[in-house]
Amino acid sequence: MLHQSSQLDRLYHALADSGRRAMLDRLSRGPASVSELAAPLEMTLSAVVQHLKVLEESGLVRTEKVGRVRTCRVDSKALSLAERWINQRRKLWERRLDRLGDVLAALPDEDQAKDSKP
Amino acid sequence: MLHQSSQLDRLYHALADSGRRAMLDRLSRGPASVSELAAPLEMTLSAVVQHLKVLEESGLVRTEKVGRVRTCRVDSKALSLAERWINQRRKLWERRLDRLGDVLAALPDEDQAKDSKP
Repeated sequence: MLHQSSQLDRLYHALADSGRRAMLDRLSRGPASVSELAAPLEMTLSAVVQHLKVLEESGLVRTEKVGRVRTCRVDSKALSLAERWINQRRKLWERRLDRLGDVLAALPDEDQAKDSKP
Repeated sequence: MLHQSSQLDRLYHALADSGRRAMLDRLSRGPASVSELAAPLEMTLSAVVQHLKVLEESGLVRTEKVGRVRTCRVDSKALSLAERWINQRRKLWERRLDRLGDVLAALPDEDQAKDSKP
């Protein structure tokens, strides 16, 4: 539980930067080398490497070095975990709002007269 | 676009702390006053107020003061925005994996012999 909590800390921290989200955007269209990843970004290669480290520590990105090329890819399991936590809270809240809506709908309707206007 | 990007920064930053997630957990079960929110948490009231400020700035929580009581509630629109960004990337990536699966499935199957074992 504590382990999952610190994993969620790292996941959301990794997502809280537009540069890192741009890198995830690129990687969700397919694997890329570090220099392919850096090319469209207005960042130094060293900044890209730093961001990549944060993404790797969060589990959102896996990298593999073959020869001199490091290939990066998204890990959809980590994306699912980050999504699931939010999704469960949103559903709880919306269910609450639905129940509130049911209660309101069961009350006598003071505006009924308006509906029968020509 | 830039506006949405900084909103996503604030959203994910707000989610990147287990104390703030515990507060969202509580609020997704219903509105609460600041002291109700603080009660189950091992935090000073001043820490709770600081976290609440981060949650309000992210748009995840709205608060309203009536008399001396400040009531806090979740805003599910902000939760949806945080969820949608992740969901879209995960779907892109999984679609890519599906296409890769189709390509692999179309290749001649070297393991077919194993299936016919007794």
